[in-house]
Amino acid sequence: MGNIAPALLEDLRKVLGETGLIEAAFAGPADSEGWIARPASTEEVAATMKLCHDAGQPVIPIGGRTGLVQALSRTGHELGLSLERMRAVEEIDPTSRTMTVQAGVPLQIAQEIAEEHGLMFPLDLGARGTATIGGNIATNAGGNRVLRWGMTRDMVIALEAVLADGTILPLQGKALKNNTGYDLKHLLIGSEGTLGIVTRAILRVRPKPKSENCAFVAIPNFETLTKFLSYMEGQSSGSLSSFEVLWSDYYEFITGDMTPHNPPIAYGQAYYVLVETMGADPKKDATDFEELLGEAFEQELIADAVIAKSESERHALWHIRDDVLQLWQLSPLFTFDVSLAIAQMDNYTSEIKRRFDETFDNPQVMIFGHLGDGNLHVIVAPGDKGLDTHHMVEEIIYDAIRSRNGSVSAEHGIGLEKKGYLSYSRNADEIALMRKIKQAFDPKGILNPGKIFDVD
Amino acid sequence: MGNIAPALLEDLRKVLGETGLIEAAFAGPADSEGWIARPASTEEVAATMKLCHDAGQPVIPIGGRTGLVQALSRTGHELGLSLERMRAVEEIDPTSRTMTVQAGVPLQIAQEIAEEHGLMFPLDLGARGTATIGGNIATNAGGNRVLRWGMTRDMVIALEAVLADGTILPLQGKALKNNTGYDLKHLLIGSEGTLGIVTRAILRVRPKPKSENCAFVAIPNFETLTKFLSYMEGQSSGSLSSFEVLWSDYYEFITGDMTPHNPPIAYGQAYYVLVETMGADPKKDATDFEELLGEAFEQELIADAVIAKSESERHALWHIRDDVLQLWQLSPLFTFDVSLAIAQMDNYTSEIKRRFDETFDNPQVMIFGHLGDGNLHVIVAPGDKGLDTHHMVEEIIYDAIRSRNGSVSAEHGIGLEKKGYLSYSRNADEIALMRKIKQAFDPKGILNPGKIFDVD
Repeated sequence: MGNIAPALLEDLRKVLGETGLIEAAFAGPADSEGWIARPASTEEVAATMKLCHDAGQPVIPIGGRTGLVQALSRTGHELGLSLERMRAVEEIDPTSRTMTVQAGVPLQIAQEIAEEHGLMFPLDLGARGTATIGGNIATNAGGNRVLRWGMTRDMVIALEAVLADGTILPLQGKALKNNTGYDLKHLLIGSEGTLGIVTRAILRVRPKPKSENCAFVAIPNFETLTKFLSYMEGQSSGSLSSFEVLWSDYYEFITGDMTPHNPPIAYGQAYYVLVETMGADPKKDATDFEELLGEAFEQELIADAVIAKSESERHALWHIRDDVLQLWQLSPLFTFDVSLAIAQMDNYTSEIKRRFDETFDNPQVMIFGHLGDGNLHVIVAPGDKGLDTHHMVEEIIYDAIRSRNGSVSAEHGIGLEKKGYLSYSRNADEIALMRKIKQAFDPKGILNPGKIFDVD
Repeated sequence: MGNIAPALLEDLRKVLGETGLIEAAFAGPADSEGWIARPASTEEVAATMKLCHDAGQPVIPIGGRTGLVQALSRTGHELGLSLERMRAVEEIDPTSRTMTVQAGVPLQIAQEIAEEHGLMFPLDLGARGTATIGGNIATNAGGNRVLRWGMTRDMVIALEAVLADGTILPLQGKALKNNTGYDLKHLLIGSEGTLGIVTRAILRVRPKPKSENCAFVAIPNFETLTKFLSYMEGQSSGSLSSFEVLWSDYYEFITGDMTPHNPPIAYGQAYYVLVETMGADPKKDATDFEELLGEAFEQELIADAVIAKSESERHALWHIRDDVLQLWQLSPLFTFDVSLAIAQMDNYTSEIKRRFDETFDNPQVMIFGHLGDGNLHVIVAPGDKGLDTHHMVEEIIYDAIRSRNGSVSAEHGIGLEKKGYLSYSRNADEIALMRKIKQAFDPKGILNPGKIFDVD
């Protein structure tokens, strides 16, 4: 690991000022320190990149540091470039239903400011308090409401970005539709800081729903689970906002002796679903929701159900879904974020469980996920402290994904962590094309080098 | 204009067979004839492109020939490549809610086959009977339901494409979420056949709605119009599927003496809106819809309303919106497809009308559009047969778009027709980046050359 040239640091300090260039931890409090540029404007980001480009200095863009795939890990003497001083919500336009923000705005702040204007920015995920809009865009974050409102890319109308050489790609307009040449925006979204640095964005906001209806239901088998999803999608007229499934192993762990949660529904079924609708008429929506679930019960689509009757009951149900930190009691523990066709999920989970049982003495495999999106989170505690365990676990998870034409990353991205498995979901021709695109955007290879794929 | 080398034609005939290589009209029945390859499989598309790549032979991919921006116009001795023999709907997967089709499937066939399985493919536009899925993808088609279900790109889960050199980019899996490197799919969508030839796609389908509720309403001014849009979006709980606005000039023309349509609502208001919701419970939805409009009337958001009481009444209302062919009675006539922030639409339309009045003796300017998407279609009959009229009209339309950071093409694309105006919506840095991407995908420049932008 080399060092950043003193002359470059001096030039950067001239552009950024004393508080604009600091030594601090890169990826989190426990991470080793390095130089981090903290530009306060798009122009300062551009000036920083121009200096780095001229000097051949590699740069790692930094958002809220909540990523899960080591996309901020240094592989050399990279300069960090944090958007933490660019936190302005620049405009809310209720007529056009847009919100213009700087990249460093935390997701939760964007949500809250939208709410203050009677609007909703529907992206939502556990790290909302710290994750930034820029980071959400760089990783194309997903979350709990993709089924209805899509991923981050579906909520970004336009973005401004700084390229490797300091060129500023300007913010386009506020209209949803814009078919003027290649969609550079969609190429930048999800590129994990390797093609450009997102500095501002125009977000699509929606009218704020007036009701949230939430229930926990139990379902005996996979076929019925998919029928219940189709039923809810078909009957809820577009108001279905979440369909989060907990496999019984995860449900029994997260509501068991080792955690503070009580099971809202008795054990004994194969699947537990947190289902949620959002609507415009609290009274009517609550009645409709109860009727929908009642009818599902009569059709034997669900075996049991608990409907949240208050805001605190709703939070308690969601907490069961979201409290993944409880899993850290198990060690070693490996977590995965895969996607595949819904129709193949049952045989996928059967296969990996069988293979873990064959490979380890007492493995725990827990699964939950955004079923409607084809996205499963698989948690594996192999119960074996051997050094090769991680790799063995990965091979089982990803091999069964590859044979089903699935994705080794549904929503977390590739970063460094999954680079070795990118070829399980993308073939050599696709990766070759990605390299050419990287070369077109960043010929010197200074933006987040070594992430997603190697350039050579 | 040169000719295609006889040796290449012979090689192509070996790959494609006698019926696979014909001389026929390119862009439509009235267009001049040329050689058109008609591959019957992805492998034949790949073999065709490999031969053309080796020979440096330019190729224009051809879908349903319903495009509106001269994207099929030849600028030299291009070979046409039509997907018309690749019309298989390969699979419907109701569990994963996907549909796998070849690119040559007409949109309406895809819609109908989805319906037969109790599902809906929500893309819809006037040319549905002829336009193909491949063409819809190549142009990122929009249409009448973008507000709820998005543009074509939002309905494509994965696609297979053949690159300029014959490389086949494989179909990815069926899951909605896939964050594995750069999104090549979104780059190909809307690239108008200049980066690759779409051969197959996995489409996202939805449960088929069981009710369609449709009304025509009249609104006195623009501020109220945007309030009514917010009201409908907020109160309809996600079931609002269309919000199509007719400016009074267009409404009065399309229901006037020159056409077979009768005005469903008396003249005298500034805007007329076709508003539609789709839901799951015909009886309840009809009541809800009536109540919604009644409440809007009480809040003075609408001045008048007619609700369709039958399928035939619904069709009659939609026909008023869709029967743009009536406009062809005016000549010369120029049509535009622009987008901009909803909040700026009123001053945009005022400005262009003022400028047309200043420039021409008796101009007719008619406007309708997908208001919620920021998309206006502007129809101008300048009433002046001078040769320079088209250019003068374009300058007025696009100049006022440029100054509002709008888009010269909301949904039709650029093709040849708008190439000269691409720079009104994309700056030089963006176009330079597009050229680099083109170079990375198609270094010989053989795919639909001269469209969107010039390579040098």
